[in-house]
Amino acid sequence: MKNFTYAITTVVHFGKGQIEKLGAEVASCSSRVLMVYGGGSIKRNGVYDGAVAQLRAHGVEWAELPGVEPNPRISTVREGIRLCREKGLDGILALGGGSVIDCSKAIAAGALYDGDPWDFPAGRAAPEKALPLFTVLTMAATGSEMDNIAVISNPDSNEKEAFGAPCCLPAVSILDPSYTCSLPASQTAAGTADIMSHTLENYFSPIETNYLADNMAEAILRACVLYGPKAIEVPDDYDARANLMWCASWAINGFLDMGKPVGWSVHRMEHELSAFYDVTHGVGLAILTPNWMRYVLSEQTEARFARYGEAVWGLDRALPQREKAEAAIQKTRAFFNSLGLPATLTEVGIDSTHFAEMARKARTANFDRTFVPLSVEDIQEIYKMSL
Amino acid sequence: MKNFTYAITTVVHFGKGQIEKLGAEVASCSSRVLMVYGGGSIKRNGVYDGAVAQLRAHGVEWAELPGVEPNPRISTVREGIRLCREKGLDGILALGGGSVIDCSKAIAAGALYDGDPWDFPAGRAAPEKALPLFTVLTMAATGSEMDNIAVISNPDSNEKEAFGAPCCLPAVSILDPSYTCSLPASQTAAGTADIMSHTLENYFSPIETNYLADNMAEAILRACVLYGPKAIEVPDDYDARANLMWCASWAINGFLDMGKPVGWSVHRMEHELSAFYDVTHGVGLAILTPNWMRYVLSEQTEARFARYGEAVWGLDRALPQREKAEAAIQKTRAFFNSLGLPATLTEVGIDSTHFAEMARKARTANFDRTFVPLSVEDIQEIYKMSL
Repeated sequence: MKNFTYAITTVVHFGKGQIEKLGAEVASCSSRVLMVYGGGSIKRNGVYDGAVAQLRAHGVEWAELPGVEPNPRISTVREGIRLCREKGLDGILALGGGSVIDCSKAIAAGALYDGDPWDFPAGRAAPEKALPLFTVLTMAATGSEMDNIAVISNPDSNEKEAFGAPCCLPAVSILDPSYTCSLPASQTAAGTADIMSHTLENYFSPIETNYLADNMAEAILRACVLYGPKAIEVPDDYDARANLMWCASWAINGFLDMGKPVGWSVHRMEHELSAFYDVTHGVGLAILTPNWMRYVLSEQTEARFARYGEAVWGLDRALPQREKAEAAIQKTRAFFNSLGLPATLTEVGIDSTHFAEMARKARTANFDRTFVPLSVEDIQEIYKMSL
Repeated sequence: MKNFTYAITTVVHFGKGQIEKLGAEVASCSSRVLMVYGGGSIKRNGVYDGAVAQLRAHGVEWAELPGVEPNPRISTVREGIRLCREKGLDGILALGGGSVIDCSKAIAAGALYDGDPWDFPAGRAAPEKALPLFTVLTMAATGSEMDNIAVISNPDSNEKEAFGAPCCLPAVSILDPSYTCSLPASQTAAGTADIMSHTLENYFSPIETNYLADNMAEAILRACVLYGPKAIEVPDDYDARANLMWCASWAINGFLDMGKPVGWSVHRMEHELSAFYDVTHGVGLAILTPNWMRYVLSEQTEARFARYGEAVWGLDRALPQREKAEAAIQKTRAFFNSLGLPATLTEVGIDSTHFAEMARKARTANFDRTFVPLSVEDIQEIYKMSL
């Protein structure tokens, strides 16, 4: 096992009604917060009213930044920072899913940074301090509620880049699965694909040495296969929603990549899809993942895919290894289809126009530590397979 | 899933040589610490010298409390508190296994408490504040390095009681598996049984609703079955030691009991064994656990035991449920035997003399939320089965 540091210090209040703990938590650190949210679903599902009641009850003042985009833009981050400075705010309260929380992390760090916040995603600066961040989660998908990573888009340059820093980890996250019971099937499906993709990126690593990380990854994948369809069929199945939500946090909070070398592939390819076309992240991942699997399957990698097939898809241990590996990939494709997710880029209106440029941009990330190193040509080929 | 709060805020530096991070971590909170340790093995395995070098390099002064007992005594806790007050210490550095860390937690809380520290285990007071606690772990077993629980003995009254409080959670723990490579087989075996027992106590709960908790429990148990014998056969097998160490922390840090009702049975029975006879904790657990399983096996519980048999012992899914459950219990007994652990109380010099009193004392704990509620007579019967 490789050396690592475990420091997941976010306090999570999990379960129905846990928003009642929000006010005391915020008030213990902050007196005036920026409330960040998206398109307004929080005004229908009770999150907004619940948060406002909590802040009022604990004497916390606030300003609001509504309208965060599904792929949050650097311009919105800049507006949030402006509000923090203008109003002397000392904390950020994110009400929403991964986009809102990612945007909030960039604001939290940017408010204490003497420069332009695009420096963080561009890799020109690393956040060293941030305002305390509180989140109330409304969707099980990105895991942003329990990690220190943010993905921000710059539509002017067709760029979508991630950054992360310990100071951006949420201080407190309220995870109430009942808020997700009103999500439409398409979002539940995309969220499930996102959770699975995070897990698969961590799972398919060059070396296996951390037994718990590998087995937890398999458990998260099985949970998605079990509870994703349940949540789509019966949207207010609380236990299905709760298990998906807890899986989402653990798919990406760091537990799965501790002690082993991990390099993500599919996310880097997908980021170019959404940078160029604004496609839903989970949908892009569901399209690309099985094609990436098919492309990297080889004599060298088939054992790992076969193990995945046994542990996640219950394939017969006695099957020949290659057959098992191929069946596992087919099962992955079929599962995403069964959730109602598109299977091809064509279905979401993407053609090959920008493939060369997208592949080149994706490859600027480090692909040397990935499960199978990929060249620009490899990435372009995977895009083509996905048409 | 039941509501819960997740707050495992201990920072863990895991891996070979990670003691190099100790000095900076201690110095960030404390300037004069109490160094707590046991019988002196830390002077042979490099832990003492490494810690001293770190404290010196970062200008941290210290006093020493050596000689903590395998079942740490309240008299030793009192001595530690006296030293903290006399010398104006502002932190505790525990070098050792679970006993040393448990003792250190009681000192850390007791030093800031205006009363006798036995009030905590006796349930007369709950710690509200504590000195910051740093640990360097030398044995994979109790998980004390990543939880807030301590077990303290009072030989005058044959009492051994646990207490826990958020303020007792270690701030930083150094987990270097290489320190455990010099452990004798008997201690590795007892530690493995301890890890498995913690996991089983969490696993056998009245209701299953937290998918990740249940699957993680099964993964920890499989890891013990895989790596326990490896570490005994090849003591310096680093990966075996590393996986056992990481499993030990996760068996009891709270992850396994979140979102489900859990009540421990075997530990409460075992505490009376070690309170009356000073038997090694893991040995007592290994003796009692399979007998507890046999005693509580019924039509109501056999499904859970059958699932345990499939997931941990690889038993054929097609076997009849009762047969699978019984085979799982036999496998558990046989595994502990294969580690060289005693199978009966007789082997460790315990007879029925105190069974009635031990059962009565064990039953003062709450057995109403346990997997199967037990009466004083039930507990006495399990002791008898273990002779």
